[in-house]
Parts: sequence; C-alpha cells; structure tokens
Amino acid sequence: MLEPLLHPATVAVIGASRDPGKVGHAILANLQAGGFAGRLVPVNPAAKEILGLPCVPDLAALGEPVDLAVIAVPRDAVKPVVEGAVRSGARSLVIVSAGFKEADAKGAELERDIARICHARSVRLLGPNCLGLINTQHRLNATFARQAPREGCVSVVSQSGALCATILDWAASRHLGLAKLFSMGNKADLDENDLLAVLAEDDATRVIVGYLESLSSGDEFMKTAEATASRKPVVILKVGSTTAGVRAASSHTGALAGDEEIAYGAAFKRSGIIRAEGFEELFDIATALAMQPLPGGRRVAVITNAGGPGIMAADAVEHAGMRVAPLSRATADSLKERLPAAASVSNPIDVLGDADPERYALAVDAAQADEGVDAIIVILTPQAMTRPAETARAIARGGRRDKPVLAVFMGGEGVMPGRDELAAASLPDYSSPKRAVAALKAMCDYAAWRKRPPRVVTRFPVNRRRVERILSRNLRLGRTTIIDQDAKDILRAYDFGVPESGFAANADEAVETAERIGYPVAMKIASQDILHKTDLGGVKLDLFSPAQVRDAYDLMMLRIGRRLPDAHLDGVWIEQMCRGREVILGMTRDPQFGPMLMFGLGGIFVEVMKDVAFYLAPITASEAIQMLKSTRSYELLTGARQQDKVDLDAIASGLQRISQLATDFPSVQELDINPFMVGEPGTEPLVADARFTLRSQGGDKP
Amino acid sequence: MLEPLLHPATVAVIGASRDPGKVGHAILANLQAGGFAGRLVPVNPAAKEILGLPCVPDLAALGEPVDLAVIAVPRDAVKPVVEGAVRSGARSLVIVSAGFKEADAKGAELERDIARICHARSVRLLGPNCLGLINTQHRLNATFARQAPREGCVSVVSQSGALCATILDWAASRHLGLAKLFSMGNKADLDENDLLAVLAEDDATRVIVGYLESLSSGDEFMKTAEATASRKPVVILKVGSTTAGVRAASSHTGALAGDEEIAYGAAFKRSGIIRAEGFEELFDIATALAMQPLPGGRRVAVITNAGGPGIMAADAVEHAGMRVAPLSRATADSLKERLPAAASVSNPIDVLGDADPERYALAVDAAQADEGVDAIIVILTPQAMTRPAETARAIARGGRRDKPVLAVFMGGEGVMPGRDELAAASLPDYSSPKRAVAALKAMCDYAAWRKRPPRVVTRFPVNRRRVERILSRNLRLGRTTIIDQDAKDILRAYDFGVPESGFAANADEAVETAERIGYPVAMKIASQDILHKTDLGGVKLDLFSPAQVRDAYDLMMLRIGRRLPDAHLDGVWIEQMCRGREVILGMTRDPQFGPMLMFGLGGIFVEVMKDVAFYLAPITASEAIQMLKSTRSYELLTGARQQDKVDLDAIASGLQRISQLATDFPSVQELDINPFMVGEPGTEPLVADARFTLRSQGGDKP
Repeated sequence: MLEPLLHPATVAVIGASRDPGKVGHAILANLQAGGFAGRLVPVNPAAKEILGLPCVPDLAALGEPVDLAVIAVPRDAVKPVVEGAVRSGARSLVIVSAGFKEADAKGAELERDIARICHARSVRLLGPNCLGLINTQHRLNATFARQAPREGCVSVVSQSGALCATILDWAASRHLGLAKLFSMGNKADLDENDLLAVLAEDDATRVIVGYLESLSSGDEFMKTAEATASRKPVVILKVGSTTAGVRAASSHTGALAGDEEIAYGAAFKRSGIIRAEGFEELFDIATALAMQPLPGGRRVAVITNAGGPGIMAADAVEHAGMRVAPLSRATADSLKERLPAAASVSNPIDVLGDADPERYALAVDAAQADEGVDAIIVILTPQAMTRPAETARAIARGGRRDKPVLAVFMGGEGVMPGRDELAAASLPDYSSPKRAVAALKAMCDYAAWRKRPPRVVTRFPVNRRRVERILSRNLRLGRTTIIDQDAKDILRAYDFGVPESGFAANADEAVETAERIGYPVAMKIASQDILHKTDLGGVKLDLFSPAQVRDAYDLMMLRIGRRLPDAHLDGVWIEQMCRGREVILGMTRDPQFGPMLMFGLGGIFVEVMKDVAFYLAPITASEAIQMLKSTRSYELLTGARQQDKVDLDAIASGLQRISQLATDFPSVQELDINPFMVGEPGTEPLVADARFTLRSQGGDKP
Repeated sequence: MLEPLLHPATVAVIGASRDPGKVGHAILANLQAGGFAGRLVPVNPAAKEILGLPCVPDLAALGEPVDLAVIAVPRDAVKPVVEGAVRSGARSLVIVSAGFKEADAKGAELERDIARICHARSVRLLGPNCLGLINTQHRLNATFARQAPREGCVSVVSQSGALCATILDWAASRHLGLAKLFSMGNKADLDENDLLAVLAEDDATRVIVGYLESLSSGDEFMKTAEATASRKPVVILKVGSTTAGVRAASSHTGALAGDEEIAYGAAFKRSGIIRAEGFEELFDIATALAMQPLPGGRRVAVITNAGGPGIMAADAVEHAGMRVAPLSRATADSLKERLPAAASVSNPIDVLGDADPERYALAVDAAQADEGVDAIIVILTPQAMTRPAETARAIARGGRRDKPVLAVFMGGEGVMPGRDELAAASLPDYSSPKRAVAALKAMCDYAAWRKRPPRVVTRFPVNRRRVERILSRNLRLGRTTIIDQDAKDILRAYDFGVPESGFAANADEAVETAERIGYPVAMKIASQDILHKTDLGGVKLDLFSPAQVRDAYDLMMLRIGRRLPDAHLDGVWIEQMCRGREVILGMTRDPQFGPMLMFGLGGIFVEVMKDVAFYLAPITASEAIQMLKSTRSYELLTGARQQDKVDLDAIASGLQRISQLATDFPSVQELDINPFMVGEPGTEPLVADARFTLRSQGGDKP
C-alpha cells in the first residue's frame, strides 16, 4: 500500500533550496548524504541546479511521474503544489510545511482541501507539519533532521516532529539503529493505524516505538494495535492531549469512569501495547526488546561486583512483582567452586569488588544454565581493579543466549568504554538497577500477554427487541434518563434478576401488594419528578407487617408532599427486599474506546475508597473475574473476614451481560446497577436499583 | 572533633607499596596527585622510598605523632598496626583493609578489638573495609579511587565503598564538584551520625548526599538528621538491609506496622531527610539543590521549543502535586509582544521549534519576573535551527536568579555542547521532563519542611504510677499480654474513657450489673484461658432486657464449656454498649525508631483495605490531625456521605496520649485500641477493647 512512500525509485523535493539554512536544502542534503540509490529531483523554478543535481521548475516539467514528492514550500503555496503534483502523477506525498490545522482556521481548511485532493486520486500523504520519513533499509532519509540513524530494527511513529529529532539525536549517541521513522505531523491522511499496519508487516522492524498525543480512531487503533502487538512489541508514550489547565479542571469533576488516563490504560492493556511512562523509559524498554529475547518468566538472577547496587536491584525486582530467583544447588556448588571464598553464591551473586572479566563470564554462564532463572541483570561498578571494556566483552561471550541479559554499568567516564562494548555486542545497558528492572518488567508483561489464552466472548440469549422498544419509547418522549421499572425491565430482558414488585396507588393497595410479595418489603416513591428518592425520604426499607406498610405509606406521602408541594406523586412501588452484599456494575461510553465497564463494592468502597476496576467491552468470563480480583476489597467477596461468601460467577456473568448490552445499544451512554445485590453461590443476584443515560441522537437499529 | 581526620598536617600511609596494582600504592599516589600540602609519610618496612617519598618502617620510627594514618595492610596485620599507631600518638585512623565484620566471626572479633583500642585513646577511626575519605578543601584525597573529584559544595557519606567509587566516576562526567566524601565501611567507630554532625557544621558543604544500608542508632539518627536538615538539605538513598529472600518472606507476615519500609519513611519525613528512590534520583535532586535556590512554592512555569515535551512536563508537574502556574496578564502581554505570533504565551510557554537563544532568554526572564511563578523548567529539543550551547548561555543569563531554573536538554550528541554550558553555568540539566520535575518536587517538599511550624508536644496530666503498678504486676506474673480490665485500667490512667462495666460470677449478678449500668449492655466471657473471645462465642452485644441477659449468660457458659472443657471460666463482664464509629489506635515499637503510632478506621478499612496512617512518637496535635487526614477513608469521619460527623480532636487527643504512654513505658512493645468508639463532637470516645504486649525484660522506672 505504501510502496511508493517506503521504496520510491524517484524522489522529488519541491521547494529545494540552495540556502543551507532552509528546510528545502536540508531534506535534499539528507537524501543525498543518506546514499539514496534512486533518482533525486530538486524542484525549484528559480534554480538551475542544487547540490550538484539539475533542477526542474515543477513536476510537470519532469515528464514522468515521481514515486514520492516531499513538499517544503510556504503554507500558502502548498495547495497549488499538491494539485500540480497529483496531476503530474506523483504516487505519494510528504508535506513538511507547517501552518495548517495546528495554526488557525484557514490552515485547517487548507489541510482539509489538500487531504481531499490526495484522497480523490488515492495518493497517500504524510503530514503536513512533520519532519518527514526515514527508511534505512532503502537508504531513504527524507527528513530535515540533523542526525541520520544507522540501520537497525527499531521503527518509530511519532506525532511530534521535535520528538523525532530528539529520538534521532538520542539514538545516534546510544548506537541504536533504526528501521523506519515516520513523523506523522497533523495526520491529514496517514495516521498511527496505517503506519502500525505497515510496520507489522515490515520484516526489518523488530520493535515499534510510538509517541502519541491523540488517536485518529480509538476503535480502529485497538484492532490494529492488537494485531501488531501479536507479531512484535509496540512501546508507546502517550501524553495528555489536553492542556494542563483543562486536565486540572477535569480532575475535579469526580467522574469515576471516562477519565482519559484510565481509558488509555485499559485500551493499551487490552491491545498488548507496552505503555512507557516517560521518554527515557520508552527507549529503555525498546532497547531491551530490540536486543534481547523475551524472558520465559519472572525469575531474575542478579550478578554484581558490589553489595549495594545488588540490593537496589533485588529491591526493584520485588517491587516490580518479579522474583529474585533462588539458585539451584548445582549452580551454587559450581559457583562456590570457581569463585573466591568471599563471593556470595546465592542470588544476588556477588563476584566481589576485584572481579575480573572471567568471573563475570562464569557467573553469567551459570545463571544462563540454571533452570530456575528466566532473566539476568549484570551490574558493574567502577572499582580499583575493574576493567569495564573487557568485562563487557566477557559478559557478551558468557553463556547461551536464550535468556535476556540486561547490563547496568554504573558511573560515568570510567565505565564508558564498557558501555560502548555492550552496545556493540547488542547488550542493553542502563545507568541504574531500577531502570534495568523497569525495562525487564515491561518485557515480562509483554511476554505474558503474548501467551494469553484466546479470548472467547460469550453471547447470552437475550430479548433484544424488548430493550429496543423501551429505549425508543423513552427517546420519543424526550427522556434521556431511564430509572425505576423501565430500567429494571431492560435489565430483565438481559436476564438480570429483579426484585418482585408491584405498584400501589394508596395504602390499601400497598398492603395488598406486600402480602402478595411476602414480607419484608421495601417501599419507594413513584414519581417522575423525584430523582434522588433517598435524599427526600422516598425510600423505606425492611417493612415487616401490614401496619408498618400502612404507616410508611402515609408518612411518605405526608412528608414529601410538604417538602415538594409541586411534585406529582403517582403512588409507591412495593418491592421484595434484597439480601446479600451490595456491589456496583457500571458502564460509561468512552469517546475514544467505547463502552468501559466498571465494578466495585457498593457505597463507600466506590465513593470514598475509589476501589474500582475498569475494563473495555466486550469482556470475557475470565476477564470479568480478573476485574473482581483487581479490587482491593475482593477479599470481602470470598468468605474471608467473617463475611459471607458471594457468587462470584454471578457477578462476572452480570458484567458480561452489561458488556453485551452496551455493545448492542450504542445509544446507551451510561448505565449503573447500584446496588446489585449478590448472595451466596447458587442464589440469583438482584438488581436493587438501576439507571440508564441515553444519547438522544443516533438510533439503535441492529 | 574530627580536625586531625579532616585537616591533617601529616598523613602516613601504612602499607604503602611500590606496586601500582596495590591499594597501598593507589592511596599514596592519590594523596600526591591531589596536591596534599602537608607531610606525606609512606610506611613500609621493606622499602626505602615510594613515589619519591622516603619510607619509614613503622610510625614509631618517625619520631613524631601523625594526624592521620591510613592503613592498607592485610587483615591479620591490622590489629598490631593499629596498636602501634595509637601508641605512637596517631590522632586519627582510616582502615581500608577488608575481612572484618563483613567476612566472618574472627573478623568481627578483630574489628571489636580495634575499635576498643582506638576508643581507649580517643582516636577516631573511619572504616574498616572502606574506600577512604576526601576533603577537597584541604586537597586531601585519602582513597584508592580511580577518579578524583573537583572542589565543590556536595558532600557524600556512604556505607558502600563501591558506591563511592561510582559516585566519583559519575560526578567527574557531570562536572559536579564535591566538598567531602566519607566511605564509612563497617562503621566500627565513625558512623552516619558523627559525619552528619560534622557536615552540618562544614561551611563548604551546601548539600549532603548519603547512601545507607543500615543505621547505627535510629534514635540518634533522627536527632542528628533533623538538626542537620534544618541547616542544609540531606538527600539519602536507603536500600534494604535484608536479603531479597528475607524481605520476601517478611512481606507475608501481614504485620501492619513495624515494616522497615514504613518506619524509614516515617523517620525520614519527620527528620526532613529527602529520600531518593534510586541512584539517579539521588544525584538528580542533589544537583538541583547544589546549584539552585529553593523554590518559594509549587507554581511552575514550563518553557519549551516543542509541544510534546511541554505536555510531558505539565503532566509530570500535576502528577507530582505541583501546579502549572497560570501566567499573569502582564507576562502574557509582554511575551505576546516579543515572541512570534504562533508562539504559545500561556503555560507551557512554547517558543517554537525555530527558537533562537534570545527567545529562550526572554521567556526565562518573563517567568522570573512573574509573581505567580515559583520555579522554572526550560526544555530544549534539538531541531533544525536549535543552537544548544548558545541557548544554554542565554538561559543562564536570562532573568533574576531568585527562582530555581532546571533545564531539560533532550537528545544525545546534538545537545551535548549545551549540557556542558549548563554545567558551567551551574544550571542542573536533566534528560527528561519527568526527572527534572521529580527533582523540583523534592526541592519543594524540603522547602516546605524548612518552613514547618515549631513542634509542640503536649504533655497530658496522667496517672503514671497506676500504670507502673499494673505493668509490673503483670510482668511479675509472667504475663506479656494484657487485655480486658487491666488494659482498660491502664488507658483510664491516661485519661481514656472506658465503658462502664462490672464483673458477674453468675446469671443473677449479670442481671443485677446490667440493671445498674442501664440497657443495652454487652456481655464478654471472663477467662484468662480465652484470647479470641469473639471466635468462641464469648461476646454478646446489644442485650436489652434482664431476660436477654440471663439467656445470654446461660448459653455462653454452656457452649464455651462444651468447646473448651478445660478452660477456667471466671464469669462474665457486663459492659455499657459503645455507640459511634469504630476506629483503631495502635502503637508498635520499631526496633530502629521507637514507638510508631497507627491510625485507621475499624474492621475492613484496616484489615482489607490497608487504609492506615503511621507516625513516629512523640506526636503533636496537628500531626495527629494530619494522620487522620492522610487516610483515604478520612471523609467518613467528617460528616460526608450521610455518615455521622465524629469528634476528630478526640481521636487526635487519643493518639497523643498513646504517644505519651509509649514514650513513658518502654516495656510496652505493642498496643492496640480496637475498636475505639468515637461519637459526635463533644462526646467522649470509649475504649471498647484494648490489648498491650509487653517486653518481659527491661524495667519502666522513670
């Protein structure tokens, strides 16, 4: 699809310039310096030749279509240039010029026009407002960056040109090679989804690194990302797309779900994307993935020539949820035999301050051979006898290579020769134990995700027609909030149990209904005018006798009538009392990623302790159980602490069914089952109260 | 006190060697190369001269006492050498030789002997098993490190020689100057407390950096640390002193308090110590403190030439609990006038990708002038037009210097010239926004601690004699667990309210007592043989009538008698029922730092949600209130969420009184008031149940 962009035979630089201070000069110079093997055409009506290459005034004058035209002309000249390029048959475009959507309304309009022109002729476009692209395998450096990367296996997709430049500068100093680099700029056409798909297929790319500020489409991203991550690791740094001010303000709304941070976390986790928390971590992780095999598990051996950093590493390993592996008897014996007596042959393995390269080599060897070890961290501090360069070479030699080895050469000048040797031997190197451990943890998490079982989403048999009818009736009446019986009826159609209940217009009917349902019962005011029933005294629980029902009815009418004289009171609902533990099931539709499910224990656990779990729909049974387990209060559901054990599978099934409901009905914007009363295993949980919020526009026809 | 160690006129190197591979050679060479201005004496019976200096066979032969003798001889020769040195009048010693406490039992004994010999003559000793010491102000480098530091204002105290070497290597490559460096080794004599006290007084030291694995004395450390931190910042990296295995095991005991991690956190916080989480953070923070003034508040301005890193910085600032400051109207106007139209003049200030040094200078200037800004982060990414070195100089020039400026020059080779200029101008420089923000946050926290109000610990009038009598009676009887009435009597003596109660040996007495106290009452089994009363059915609550009391008595005796036929049942306690909210007040005596107070809401809040706060005794009223506020469930005490408001001051007063009790009685190892029933403001809270654990040895005489 992107062949002309990635492997062009002819590249034109429109706006090529003789002035070395101009972007149009830098691009041409980079293409030339990079050793591009195809035909290079500077386009400039005012010049005869630039950098030794003959110029043409425009693409039409060239007489043949180019595969790639890189456009670096002032903003107002871009549209006619694009029209000309497309007319002349150019197969792909990169627009580095800025001043479009990011600048003002006029720029945004121009950008839309340009995208339309390209789309009409199926010409793919990178940018505008970008640094360009690089394909080291094709010796193509169509950027105006100051640093050129060496060839390697890491590819970069970035929404910020400045970050691309920074990455190139950084990669050069770390000897890290790149495969492809795409600066997406304003994403008028090509976006992260297109480029991830391309890189998934690209054999030269082993690891994908991304920098994102926003997504073109959350849905599509999740699909593409999961497909890509299933083939090779994708590490992404996502920063807030809102300004700090907006973000600060939004953190005060107290909304539990719907928070962008949570949504991205859930989406990345689902898709197998490795999320980097910062710029350094992005490359710490990418370097490890590019250079080393994935670990088979989380058991780590630490090798060190100094106690302190060994302890730091062990602390970090445990904090990260990995294990400082106990070494096998055989490993310990073999180390004891070959290392000095003072050396520690438990884990961390301390090869002592005067360790020579051979001691490191045999320790790495032993850890590689130990069946109980999945990954190795090797620490070196510059002590009096230390030979960093030779030690780096010895570590590289040491042992089989099927377990990842991460090096931590601490210090500065003194260990620099060692660092260079590590890079040359494809051993990732970190300046502190903590950073190495963070990178290793990301590798472990990704390896575990790759081994995940296939996801099977259960479809439950439900009465979808009934829900459609209720929703459209409410929407027709202009109601976007559904509560009470309608809400329960919707859920009943999705196989939720609801308490038995009946409407009563006066005290006699209330008693009659209570007798039919059986005591104890609850009484709730029936009125479209009252939203917060509890606050107004419109809910009375635990009524055990006809007398109590009668008293409750009269008092409720009297008191609410006094407080809200204008409210129309229809009567009351008499309901079977629910028993069991209160939990909350919820759903909020995230603008990017769609239905986000929520679970928490009722009341204070959610409202005060914020002890909630989120997951994006659709959800599987095991993911639903995982949601329950990820709350801190999970223990209370399992029968511990003198609490009654509740039916976990019933809760999981409820989450799956609201997942299905949210997927079936896009007009449902939010839903809350609060409380959902769950009893002991084998009993049916009941929806004690529920509320739906609808989006007024948009139909739900299947 | 340490004059001969820090400013010696004569330094002898015992074990000086001609062999450049030997430590005894390296030390002498370092002293020489460092330009030590006093007299240098190599001591070696087998050599005439070393490195051009005449040797003596031993210190006695020198004929005059030396200020400092550095000892680098094999382990077994150390003790006689120390004896000789002390006899000859040497005023201070550094022993770099290893093989002592860290090696084996014999080494430990030798170390004790050596310490005794020095102590007897008041000769102070650094080491053994250390790298030595450095005092750049005295041109004294008495270490065998490979790197020598330049003179500066950061001093280092480290328990690991390898870390010292690493720090020296690192400082050299970052152009960071040091004042003093102490490698403490096994701390046979001089320890962190001595050295912090010395550095507190040292005018050349502006910032102290420490690496610790353990403390000589928690109590003394807290005093010295607080006194030192009140004068200059102290940044410490504390790593686990246990092996990973021991630590992993201890994490399963489920102990709430007493955890080393929590205790150190509390101790550092109290003492104003800045705690670094890793090696890089240690120096990130120290560098900022050494180079820049403390911020007056938490309002941060961010200046950047690229949007992405600006967002990263803004995100990090907010996550760290600081604020991206809104700029004043005047600042925005002045920037608008002088920056290009496309620049962003809100915060982050985006000076655009083509920013020249002047644009940076005027943005820094504007931020320095803005009254609403306390600190400035300046970000540079290497773009086509960027001039890192000139920009660094411009930033250094820009504006007044009373607010801290932290630079983030991202990338690698391309920005290196800029980094060097920043270092030369004493501007701290970070490789990512996140690291700069973390360093700034540490500065803010420290600045806030420096401004803390004076701590006034209230002494409550209590009946100390009574507690003494109860404790000694129990200890005499060999009881180390105190529960029931004795526990309540102790607390009553410290002015805690306890429910009215009375003992009853039979059902009639039980009814009689209940009538006297007034219904409802609780009944609790009275038996020394039963610890977990509730589990055995030995607690019955909410008895409202004589009949209920009588039934409860008979059933309790019957059922416990069946389950524990051998237990001696004395009768029951009848107690006034407590009303209000359950909270827990606790104390565990930390082996290092003494009494650690604990607070949490009762039951699941502590046991399941682990929602607890800790603080080291003695505690002030405002610190106690702070403890309450630091729990997630605090809201539930304040009247929110339809919960009753409770008397917060009464809880705080309870915490202060257990603080006093724990300080008064060292034999009390643990105490738990669970639950402490707290009612609405103005009511007296009651101790519903309490338990003390005593240490059998050690008296409590005042």
